[in-house]
Amino acid sequence: MKVPSPTSLEQPEIALSRLLTAAARMTVVTAESCTGGNVAARISSVPGSSGYFLGGVVAYHNAVKSRVLRVPSNVLERFGAVSAECARAMADGARSVFDSDFAVSTTGVAGPGGGTQRKPVGLVYVGVACKATTQTVKCQFEGNRHDIVAQATERALQELRKMVEAQFSESIPVR
Amino acid sequence: MKVPSPTSLEQPEIALSRLLTAAARMTVVTAESCTGGNVAARISSVPGSSGYFLGGVVAYHNAVKSRVLRVPSNVLERFGAVSAECARAMADGARSVFDSDFAVSTTGVAGPGGGTQRKPVGLVYVGVACKATTQTVKCQFEGNRHDIVAQATERALQELRKMVEAQFSESIPVR
Repeated sequence: MKVPSPTSLEQPEIALSRLLTAAARMTVVTAESCTGGNVAARISSVPGSSGYFLGGVVAYHNAVKSRVLRVPSNVLERFGAVSAECARAMADGARSVFDSDFAVSTTGVAGPGGGTQRKPVGLVYVGVACKATTQTVKCQFEGNRHDIVAQATERALQELRKMVEAQFSESIPVR
Repeated sequence: MKVPSPTSLEQPEIALSRLLTAAARMTVVTAESCTGGNVAARISSVPGSSGYFLGGVVAYHNAVKSRVLRVPSNVLERFGAVSAECARAMADGARSVFDSDFAVSTTGVAGPGGGTQRKPVGLVYVGVACKATTQTVKCQFEGNRHDIVAQATERALQELRKMVEAQFSESIPVR
């Protein structure tokens, strides 16, 4: 499918709108822990986003990750909520629960509390899922709580944009 | 001249933190349509909010309102998604699904499209729920999409703060 080419300074939520508005019935959902709703807020800030954005879950507490997003309890017990495995399960769970084409997830330590030597403040995992594949990215951000959430939000949107763009260049099958 | 009380200029999410951090194990969840995650983002922006903020649902599409928040289909059919009845069902549903003490919901027409004569752009219903009661407020905001979402987010947080404060002044039973 041919879609308008992006501009280099285009915000990822605008790129998503451009790509997904052209793709009738393709949908996106969010599953956020450390970003706390900011990814959903950025996606839904674009007029017309209700055409492709079904919604999302803010899974701050682990009970929400397991009960609503169906993250398996052994993932939380063995790897912890801040892990690639949890980011993957959140993205897969959101795509399944909402029956969407794409999902994006975030889980990390926004601080100022909650950091450990193994999982310091600023450690964030981003997950993106479509039917064919689920990918996770490990990030280590610097700054205060606000800075970390802002960087994690931007990275999540960029990873989602990349996956949607890849679909449009037909490098991965989505459906 | 009356000196403002310490809380009169306090942002509602800070007031929530002050009240709920003092109340061990009392919890809050969000159920957002038109605000798209902004209420959750404001609540979770406060350090330590993971102690009382369980999470939330961004229910942009009606299927999410019914499937995840358990809004009865007859509410959506009879009154529509932008209605006091839907705001009430979203708040009640979120409190039930997440098993929380308090819930706040938003549903409205953020624009620029989607407005009708009966339900114009800027019409927003806010719902707040605790065990004892669920209340809704009808608002008509002015401005563009960004302005309407910002005002709806602020109003939702203020209504939630009022309900939590009322609980602490023991005017309504929560549990």
